[in-house]
Amino acid sequence: MAVNAGRLLARLEELSRIGDTGDGGCARLALSDEDRAGRDLVVTWMRDLGLDVQIDGIGNVIALREGREPGAPVMCGSHIDTVATGGRYDGNLGVLAGLEVIETLVSAGVTPRRAMAVAFFTDEEGARFAPDMLGSLVYAGGMAVEEAYDIVGIDGARLGDELARVGYLGSLPCPGLVPHAYVELHIEQGPVLEAHGEVIGAVTGVQGISWQELRLGGQFNHAGTTPMAFRHDAGLAAASVAVAARRLATELGGDQVATVGKLDLRPDLVNVVAGLATLTVDLRNTDGDLLARAERRMAAEVDRIASEEGVSVERRQLARFDPVTFDERIVHLVETTAREHGHSVRRLPSGAGHDAQMLARMCPAGMVFVPSVGGISHNPAELTTPEHIEAGANVLLDVLVHLAEDDVVA
Amino acid sequence: MAVNAGRLLARLEELSRIGDTGDGGCARLALSDEDRAGRDLVVTWMRDLGLDVQIDGIGNVIALREGREPGAPVMCGSHIDTVATGGRYDGNLGVLAGLEVIETLVSAGVTPRRAMAVAFFTDEEGARFAPDMLGSLVYAGGMAVEEAYDIVGIDGARLGDELARVGYLGSLPCPGLVPHAYVELHIEQGPVLEAHGEVIGAVTGVQGISWQELRLGGQFNHAGTTPMAFRHDAGLAAASVAVAARRLATELGGDQVATVGKLDLRPDLVNVVAGLATLTVDLRNTDGDLLARAERRMAAEVDRIASEEGVSVERRQLARFDPVTFDERIVHLVETTAREHGHSVRRLPSGAGHDAQMLARMCPAGMVFVPSVGGISHNPAELTTPEHIEAGANVLLDVLVHLAEDDVVA
Repeated sequence: MAVNAGRLLARLEELSRIGDTGDGGCARLALSDEDRAGRDLVVTWMRDLGLDVQIDGIGNVIALREGREPGAPVMCGSHIDTVATGGRYDGNLGVLAGLEVIETLVSAGVTPRRAMAVAFFTDEEGARFAPDMLGSLVYAGGMAVEEAYDIVGIDGARLGDELARVGYLGSLPCPGLVPHAYVELHIEQGPVLEAHGEVIGAVTGVQGISWQELRLGGQFNHAGTTPMAFRHDAGLAAASVAVAARRLATELGGDQVATVGKLDLRPDLVNVVAGLATLTVDLRNTDGDLLARAERRMAAEVDRIASEEGVSVERRQLARFDPVTFDERIVHLVETTAREHGHSVRRLPSGAGHDAQMLARMCPAGMVFVPSVGGISHNPAELTTPEHIEAGANVLLDVLVHLAEDDVVA
Repeated sequence: MAVNAGRLLARLEELSRIGDTGDGGCARLALSDEDRAGRDLVVTWMRDLGLDVQIDGIGNVIALREGREPGAPVMCGSHIDTVATGGRYDGNLGVLAGLEVIETLVSAGVTPRRAMAVAFFTDEEGARFAPDMLGSLVYAGGMAVEEAYDIVGIDGARLGDELARVGYLGSLPCPGLVPHAYVELHIEQGPVLEAHGEVIGAVTGVQGISWQELRLGGQFNHAGTTPMAFRHDAGLAAASVAVAARRLATELGGDQVATVGKLDLRPDLVNVVAGLATLTVDLRNTDGDLLARAERRMAAEVDRIASEEGVSVERRQLARFDPVTFDERIVHLVETTAREHGHSVRRLPSGAGHDAQMLARMCPAGMVFVPSVGGISHNPAELTTPEHIEAGANVLLDVLVHLAEDDVVA
């Protein structure tokens, strides 16, 4: 039994035409008119397959196919909203491959023991309404639906109003039904699989994230008339923090990453020593203790730099998520299934957040990664080759059937 | 013989009311309505003193008082235009102190051997029309007046049109008459005199300036999914350049300064490795050879950093002025005159540009600095104490009389 790759690719193509940015990309911000059109199309496909399509109070759509026995379904899925300059694979692949898996079973007349479900979750990207992974967070009980309704988007719209406007304010309660297991196929969005020439990633977990904003207050001064020894240069201090963050990640090693991606100086003029610098430090690690150690070392570096330059420091925590570890039985199942298909496979953590990490709060969960060409994502140039899409969908098929038929996580 | 400090302070106060920003500062951008009103007031004072007021083709105003003998005048002056958030002393002090010196001589019935002149030069700040020191540059023959007329300001206005509009398109040719000598009293705009508890600065010259813009092209990437070894982080490279600039200035020592005051990342997001960084490097030194050495070392550092991070570099020279050395006889005269007045005095270079450096192309030139409280300038909080203003004006008086009476630079 194998998926129909042509059909899957055709659906990816058709869905990508909604919100087409004209350069290969997609713009379907959550609960926009484009998102509604995309939802309507996928729901049509779900209904055409005879699935029981249900919508919950936060607009998550779950399409169910009964099993031979009653009980919780084996669920797959992802999201179909995109960032403003999104690609056509991020999220969409997991949803449409899930649909393809079920259609493959339907076409083959195979009904596994357990029910199966494919879902798409509302507002995974968080590009219009923060935080990201919102729909799956509410699904898993991490946020009350009433609280979510009152979130105001970047365009001033209220989430609850937009949900009703696009016709996806459903009646299914949140938190939702607890799946038997959850597996999500997703593009890697990073360069690791491609760099190692590997086809399948068995995702071990999602990195913990620490985002901090630093405001460094120095003294703005004339760049010509102020001798070096008299300076309290907020820009130099900010630059030193960025260099220290790189050094820290290099010294800690493992999968520790550290990024200063945002850095703004005031007054930001060629001939004025900056009096104010605002920057962010993004630290991630799959190990909670190591992440905490990185945060402590970074804090000490910032204190040292600020003291040496004579600048003040204000800190604000922008985000803090503990690492998520996926169910080892599912990681192992992905790994062995990929090998059975003759694919090279690598265990790796996810650096990005995914709906699967929210589902992991409720049930055994895991993910299958396929390579991203050039590691590029959130970009119209995002690409995963047809061969890798087919490989990933077939691994997903067998993993889901194993979970639905056997007692892998029972 | 001594100046009337009360009269000088009252004129500084009265002039500061034109373009009053309400917080102690002044906004009289060059050739604006406020600049016209300021010019009209100062010209009225010049005419009230019986001076021969002449206006040249770029709007520089030169007020002459005859000497006992014919010949080139001893000139003083500065500018009365300000930046948008200017103080009341920058430039204005040099013009009004020059006027006060002449009024002191008139009141005392003293006519030195040589003629004397006090001038204010158009658009010293360059805040509306670039480059700065424009009026004195044209006066000294460094730019043709026709070229200057075609300069378009930040508000889209043409300089020649604005000059006519405010009524200061004069008939005196440029380059202008060559003075016997030129001496400018100015606030230091830096912290050195105050820090050393000194009253008078005998300015040895003006630092050479090298401004370079660097555009560093890396690869924008997900801050979570991109391992450190895969990064081409334009932001990290920019930060490394800023840190290297500080190290370079510290290692070279002397009066070498280095500043990265402007630094912009793209896309400037917390979770994206920057793909593009634009920054400026401002290097200054009073010694032309040392400045060139600093530029070479900085270029090598940038090459090394770009190579290590795998980012591309585009360079653009924004400005390059060779250092100016003032006439040693005038520097010495300022120094000895200050000591005769019982003031502590320090030789120091100017980190900022001044009209005197343009006049130095034509004649022996020098400057007298008085302390800036906190080193603050180009800011409504700009302040020089009444005692230091009086001290500076009296030193200027004696220096000018020496130059006009004796053969110090003959």
